Amino acid sequence: MISDLSLPVHLSARGADVLLRRAAPDDLRAIMRLLSDDPISAGRGDVAGDEDAAAYATALERIVLDPSNELLVAVDDGRAVVGTLQLTVIPGMARRGSTRLLVEAVRVASTQRSSGVGSALMRWVVEEAAVELGTPLVQLTSDAARTDAHRFYTRLGFVDSHVGFKYPVTLPDPVTQPDPGADRRTS
Amino acid sequence: MISDLSLPVHLSARGADVLLRRAAPDDLRAIMRLLSDDPISAGRGDVAGDEDAAAYATALERIVLDPSNELLVAVDDGRAVVGTLQLTVIPGMARRGSTRLLVEAVRVASTQRSSGVGSALMRWVVEEAAVELGTPLVQLTSDAARTDAHRFYTRLGFVDSHVGFKYPVTLPDPVTQPDPGADRRTS
Repeated sequence: MISDLSLPVHLSARGADVLLRRAAPDDLRAIMRLLSDDPISAGRGDVAGDEDAAAYATALERIVLDPSNELLVAVDDGRAVVGTLQLTVIPGMARRGSTRLLVEAVRVASTQRSSGVGSALMRWVVEEAAVELGTPLVQLTSDAARTDAHRFYTRLGFVDSHVGFKYPVTLPDPVTQPDPGADRRTS
Repeated sequence: MISDLSLPVHLSARGADVLLRRAAPDDLRAIMRLLSDDPISAGRGDVAGDEDAAAYATALERIVLDPSNELLVAVDDGRAVVGTLQLTVIPGMARRGSTRLLVEAVRVASTQRSSGVGSALMRWVVEEAAVELGTPLVQLTSDAARTDAHRFYTRLGFVDSHVGFKYPVTLPDPVTQPDPGADRRTS
């Protein structure tokens, strides 16, 4: 169970020690800023706009309530959020019924990118979280444009054995529901 | 909610019509055979051996019970399992709080590989399941060696924008638990 992960945990990086803990609703703005602090994410629409705060808040609540998911934040001495990481436990049939640990949303603040915080987070994932959760395979995808990130994952022991495909779905506009209170208000 | 997906559903392929339904414990052997029917999976240890049946059965039960996951099987007129597909709904912060639909374990029996069953399954995922679930992004990874599969996904409209990394975790051997019944049995 992902909720059994031993958290919070102190991690030592080269340049800074951080506390890794579960994200809480109060972390919303800091997480939005971290996303927009990355040119590739910003190019996908993650610009930390006020008009998007409600959608992000709903998403954060969904992740927090989902028993297969954890969104984690790394905070520095001053309690500033300097990194995030999402973990998803996925049962599967392949590899003789192996459960996988999917990592998404690995983000480190641009001010911290040479401090070793990213390495400390990922080492914790493969050396501690995956062992605690009993998942023999950790997997992630990284945008093909993130060549620095690819070197980083390869150095940590990840193997770039797969191609990651995405399909953007066009969802219909939400149907405008008839407002059951409308008649009463005009009458 | 993934349990709300409208299933079972009839899908028309070029060469065969199939019924897509949720997997049940009785499908275990057929799913094991489908996995071993693929050289890349077989090379990873999925050889449908009797000694692995218990591990696969546990995995199947986990998937069936997991509220974020569905393992689906496509069956032909004779009720033979000719394809599988696993769906995982993953809430996320990126892309303005988009929930993703992850597809794993897309397998079609080698006897059916030119029948259009694979296309019918994947079209159902992006055109129906993703819309029903309200997930604006469908994602999957495919082994770099599966070049035919890559052409197949590209033809369907998937974009190979990411690199998929895997990290094999060495898990400690399960600790042998003291058997609480041992004393009583010998006394």
